[in-house]
Amino acid sequence: MSEPKPQRPSTAPVGDLLGKPIPRLEAQEKVTGRAVYTDDMTLPGMLHGALLGSPHPHARILSYDTARARAMPGVRAVLTAEDLPDHNVGSVIKDQPLLARGKVRYAGEPVAAVAAVDLPTARRALEAIDIRYEPLTPVLDPEEALKEGAPVIHEQRDAYVSLQADSPARAATPNAASYIRLTEGSPEEVWKRCDVVVEDVFETPAQQHVYLEPCSTLAAVDRDSGKITLYTSTQSVFRAQAITAEALGLPMSKIRVIAPRIGGGFGGKTEMTNQPITAALARAAGAPVKMTLSRTDDMLMMKSRHASRIHMRTGATRDGVLVARQVRLVFDTGAYADDGPFVASLGSYFARGPYRIPHVDVECWAVYTNRLRAGAFRGFGNPQIHFASEVQIDQLAEKLGLDPFEFRLRNALETGERWLGGAPVESGTLRTCLERAREASNWVQRREQPSPAPGKRRGVGVAAVAHTSGLLGSSATVRLNEDGTLTVNTGAVDIGQGSDTALTQCAAAVLGLSMEHINYSGPDTDVSPYDWCTGGTRTTFTVGRVVVQACEQLRQQLFEHASDMLGHLEQDLELRPGGIVSVRGQPGTGVSFGAIAGRALYFKGGPLVATSRWLFPPLPIGTGGTSAQGMPSMGNGFFVFAAQVAEVEVDELTGQVELLQAWSVHDVGRAINPAAVEGQIQGGFVQGLGLALTEELLWKDGHLLNPSLSSYKVPGSRDVPGALHPLLLEHPAGAGPFGAKGVAEVSLVGVAPAICNAIRHATGAHVTRLPATGERVLRALLAREEAASKV
Amino acid sequence: MSEPKPQRPSTAPVGDLLGKPIPRLEAQEKVTGRAVYTDDMTLPGMLHGALLGSPHPHARILSYDTARARAMPGVRAVLTAEDLPDHNVGSVIKDQPLLARGKVRYAGEPVAAVAAVDLPTARRALEAIDIRYEPLTPVLDPEEALKEGAPVIHEQRDAYVSLQADSPARAATPNAASYIRLTEGSPEEVWKRCDVVVEDVFETPAQQHVYLEPCSTLAAVDRDSGKITLYTSTQSVFRAQAITAEALGLPMSKIRVIAPRIGGGFGGKTEMTNQPITAALARAAGAPVKMTLSRTDDMLMMKSRHASRIHMRTGATRDGVLVARQVRLVFDTGAYADDGPFVASLGSYFARGPYRIPHVDVECWAVYTNRLRAGAFRGFGNPQIHFASEVQIDQLAEKLGLDPFEFRLRNALETGERWLGGAPVESGTLRTCLERAREASNWVQRREQPSPAPGKRRGVGVAAVAHTSGLLGSSATVRLNEDGTLTVNTGAVDIGQGSDTALTQCAAAVLGLSMEHINYSGPDTDVSPYDWCTGGTRTTFTVGRVVVQACEQLRQQLFEHASDMLGHLEQDLELRPGGIVSVRGQPGTGVSFGAIAGRALYFKGGPLVATSRWLFPPLPIGTGGTSAQGMPSMGNGFFVFAAQVAEVEVDELTGQVELLQAWSVHDVGRAINPAAVEGQIQGGFVQGLGLALTEELLWKDGHLLNPSLSSYKVPGSRDVPGALHPLLLEHPAGAGPFGAKGVAEVSLVGVAPAICNAIRHATGAHVTRLPATGERVLRALLAREEAASKV
Repeated sequence: MSEPKPQRPSTAPVGDLLGKPIPRLEAQEKVTGRAVYTDDMTLPGMLHGALLGSPHPHARILSYDTARARAMPGVRAVLTAEDLPDHNVGSVIKDQPLLARGKVRYAGEPVAAVAAVDLPTARRALEAIDIRYEPLTPVLDPEEALKEGAPVIHEQRDAYVSLQADSPARAATPNAASYIRLTEGSPEEVWKRCDVVVEDVFETPAQQHVYLEPCSTLAAVDRDSGKITLYTSTQSVFRAQAITAEALGLPMSKIRVIAPRIGGGFGGKTEMTNQPITAALARAAGAPVKMTLSRTDDMLMMKSRHASRIHMRTGATRDGVLVARQVRLVFDTGAYADDGPFVASLGSYFARGPYRIPHVDVECWAVYTNRLRAGAFRGFGNPQIHFASEVQIDQLAEKLGLDPFEFRLRNALETGERWLGGAPVESGTLRTCLERAREASNWVQRREQPSPAPGKRRGVGVAAVAHTSGLLGSSATVRLNEDGTLTVNTGAVDIGQGSDTALTQCAAAVLGLSMEHINYSGPDTDVSPYDWCTGGTRTTFTVGRVVVQACEQLRQQLFEHASDMLGHLEQDLELRPGGIVSVRGQPGTGVSFGAIAGRALYFKGGPLVATSRWLFPPLPIGTGGTSAQGMPSMGNGFFVFAAQVAEVEVDELTGQVELLQAWSVHDVGRAINPAAVEGQIQGGFVQGLGLALTEELLWKDGHLLNPSLSSYKVPGSRDVPGALHPLLLEHPAGAGPFGAKGVAEVSLVGVAPAICNAIRHATGAHVTRLPATGERVLRALLAREEAASKV
Repeated sequence: MSEPKPQRPSTAPVGDLLGKPIPRLEAQEKVTGRAVYTDDMTLPGMLHGALLGSPHPHARILSYDTARARAMPGVRAVLTAEDLPDHNVGSVIKDQPLLARGKVRYAGEPVAAVAAVDLPTARRALEAIDIRYEPLTPVLDPEEALKEGAPVIHEQRDAYVSLQADSPARAATPNAASYIRLTEGSPEEVWKRCDVVVEDVFETPAQQHVYLEPCSTLAAVDRDSGKITLYTSTQSVFRAQAITAEALGLPMSKIRVIAPRIGGGFGGKTEMTNQPITAALARAAGAPVKMTLSRTDDMLMMKSRHASRIHMRTGATRDGVLVARQVRLVFDTGAYADDGPFVASLGSYFARGPYRIPHVDVECWAVYTNRLRAGAFRGFGNPQIHFASEVQIDQLAEKLGLDPFEFRLRNALETGERWLGGAPVESGTLRTCLERAREASNWVQRREQPSPAPGKRRGVGVAAVAHTSGLLGSSATVRLNEDGTLTVNTGAVDIGQGSDTALTQCAAAVLGLSMEHINYSGPDTDVSPYDWCTGGTRTTFTVGRVVVQACEQLRQQLFEHASDMLGHLEQDLELRPGGIVSVRGQPGTGVSFGAIAGRALYFKGGPLVATSRWLFPPLPIGTGGTSAQGMPSMGNGFFVFAAQVAEVEVDELTGQVELLQAWSVHDVGRAINPAAVEGQIQGGFVQGLGLALTEELLWKDGHLLNPSLSSYKVPGSRDVPGALHPLLLEHPAGAGPFGAKGVAEVSLVGVAPAICNAIRHATGAHVTRLPATGERVLRALLAREEAASKV
């Protein structure tokens, strides 16, 4: 098969920084402990804030008594909904108050907030707040919630301002946050044409983000102007600004958000965390307030990945061609919608998988329940649907007697084909990824290997992955200093993935400068160019693109000056490393960036500065014969592919699964910084491993049972195999910088199905519910044995 | 006379904020004491820095002994030139080291610096530093310095990197920093055609800036990246960045400069103050260092206005037409050139005054002496030359028997005529200013009024003024937030004159927003758009222009979206106050800025942002038959006019002069904020009053005698008459925002000659040396009586 060609001629890099594994700019300060996170900051007179969580999953608030708390020495502010403007926030549906108002909808939901001179005092004050509740029946299962007669969680749902004012969910059950229906082909009629059909119900858990740094905000109010400055651990200073303004009923011009170093986010810090309530405390107290959540409060109060239940049926012909798929996908969005409708949208969108399946019927709900709200989390609905899809693909291959790779290769989308909904496949490298994964993992031999010991079984499984990269808008400004060094400004938040370094490398590569000669500055809504968010696998792709665009504009200005100064036409000039514009082929003739900058600043043209902006236009849904209903309008992205292979060992006695080795093959387009890309893939794989094997929020009667890292099991270094192989393919294409494609989320999406497919290969156990704990693997083994004995 | 017409159709303002006396944005925090200046800041582990001044005006440094100082407890760094890179700085001539190297050239010149845990320790350490000197003969008079055989101050002068590498000064005496010769017409031949000729030698003193906030810098070095952050009281964060990088031999990408609130500058904080030495201390000590100069150190070590000696001869015909002028202008630039050659350039340029004088010969020197360096100071050479010129114009009028106004009106430049050098007069409103001043001051009656009491004489005098406004380059970025509020970024430093407020009003007026809905953010080299400097009467003019340009670009983007959204052509749309774009004449049809911003951010086009830049191209010198030699290339400006009238009372017994009343008439083009303009005029007038009557740095044997505010007399509130009338004329023209012209420096330029002309009108005393102290007025009175008795 021929290699896909790049679709956009990328800027030729100058110098040798592109593709180099440069150490991260902030690595040294992080490993020495000098990096400043929000919680490391103090301001004069600063108070400490804390939140009181609801003791009930669902209850009416009858009355507040905060008198005792307010009277305590050292307490400077006590807030409940009664003290706050009645403004809801929400990225799709404005359903969430700052503090519970009228009702509580999940156990742990913030109902009151305190600012005091120190944290122990604040916590004692929380205990002194008396709130009377009238408990209501909680709704804890999303499918139960959809049934007629289920208790209503949001009585005002239809009155909320919503991006989905015309959603079909409005006409359906009152606990639906969104409803989507996507159909293509004639899904009702084709099942009879299928020689093989598989059908199952899959379940995935609510996973916690477990960013190393819990949510933290430091808010200060300028007494004279009323302007609020927030230092906060966020993935988007601009979203935090908009949300805080909305929640407090202030103009955005009165809110400034600055992101210090951030200790991870993974989607959990995209929308509201504790910014508005900390700002409200600072306003009420008349002093700066810092609120850093404890790990337990963070787990109880913030967000999780959407738990899902997926009814899926897929059919193929006996020669291994996929024909039809029917999906009913239910996302539990918890007490508030947050990004739920968007997550449901992406999940629905990828329900067909990276395959050509001509007949598809997808029905998807995001449903309110009385559980922790669910929002964005690396993969954004896609790990859930990929789990069901890729496990089912393996089942079909098994039934057809085809090798899992072979079956996937026959059905893989290629360049020029169409996604569900009609968007074209621009850089169809899935086949290339699969072939590389098969080869690197030595698949054929590894599938045949015997068990290493009695009671231990080894298996190897694969998942094909598609995801999007890019999404929404960004802007960047670059400025040449008088000495020829460069200042780069973006609004992108480096949440630990290394984007500051990669974006600096992009600028360096366009202009031929060294890292030392580029000053990259961090996000601050007062002064940074707008960037939507560090999320959606988009920072290198989208912000990198605008950085490159801005640098190209600056290069054009440099060439115009140099042409004047050297007396040669622009097309006869070239950039040379180190900040020189020379006559092409005459290295000695150049003028330095410094000389050009001096000329521009003092004699001609003015400051050398360029601002560029870009928006990935929204996805065209509904072309290509698709019927799309209820799909919330969301930003587009560039489609990227991966193939992930896992080798596991299963203990037949305990059901315990150990990951032995893994290969994660990604078409990254162009690796700006290969070390950072590999780090992303490793991190994503390990987070996927947690979803696959150990991580699950557990509730009893609506109360979270395991809100701590001792009872919620995140993979540690002992759970991660040494041989976790990130493999980078580089097929430059698309609108990203130098043809780069994103990798951040993709790296997680296929891990769980690859592992579950490996478990079945090892043992025959068909796991349909994540995480694949020892208990579930054992049950699946028993089920298989029972089924076998019946035959 | 008809009113001059605006030359550029200005953007029609939307809403009613343009021309409104809005209270300054930072007024409240300043009057409550909450404004944060550099000295109000602290950083963890911060040290305090201090400088040791030279005890000699001119000496060779033989040796340093810093051992005792270094050994003192609490001392963290001791620096002399031996510890620093051998890099000089200077805006025109790179002649100034960070600390004296090899020689000291003025008494007070910094020779050593200390950082210690507190200021008393730092000062004790300074006393413990032993430096051996070999005193050299000082050169204290600039005309003596030009003579053959004078001691040489800069042995390496010709080796310095200089913007004036081809200056004729190089061929002349070694103590010349610059030499300029401008001739027009046939100045040698026309004297015989003059019916009246006056000739005098004028002298003006070294005046101190006396900004309320002494120079102050807080420097911190990032241990990991080596990047230096400076918080400093400066008029230009970008110049401070460039100078610090140059002085320390670092790339500008490693220097960040932030300006907190600034307590005045008046030119004294344009080039190097104590930024590089504070940064060097912080690097040496490995901890943040704050250095705030005491008032005495600031007066001894920093800068002054150039003292000058001006030989001037002017001739006219008997019908009151100016014919010829010859000038020899000597500026004492002190020990280092700093902005001296530029100051000399502006002084030379205005030597013809705002008049048509067809035959001119100007010779101008900037000369090194062993005195405090002189640099930029409000007026920049122009108050000196206007003093001589306007006093001489009055003398001529007297000899011709013409009213001072009448004589000026006959010779005033008008639109379409040419400046010395050939630049066109674009908005010739001097006649209008003079006519308004004559009328407002009730000139004719006031000239006739009798003495109020025996021994008291009253007089009234006028000065016509021209200056430039604008200069060099700037840039601005504006961004529309999601809710339709605006963020405005510029690199302009508000040094107390109110530019933050005026620039916000400019943006408000273009877009029809309220002040509350605009977030204006302050200067920071990491993130602000480039601005050259707050100086040269340029901030409202130049930065205002780029703010308006950027807002106009944003408005264009808004109209493009609104046209799509409303289904109307752009030309049928109009902006309405409050952030609405409507169909023209249909107020109900509009879309809000917030709706447009949301569309742009999420659906179409990307972030609404615009960056604009502009450079006033350099002045064309040498057109129009002018011969120009040695003129350093300097930025252009827009020419502005004023007329200033002073009424004084002179005590004949003591010579003491009291200003009774004043009228300062300015064509400000368009008053963006009339209250701020009036404040500028009042402040400038009072600073001019100090120059006229009381302020003078006094030296004895090269030692400054009065480096304190008890011995250096700045006008206080009791010295300023209640009736100081700023009168604003508005003749919009030129490239400034809405036709605005600058006023900052102009307001000072004519004060001293108006007062001296009033003194002569009151008493006949012809004062040629400033300040016009009682002693000098008495001497002039005696000289006049002697002359009268000789006749």
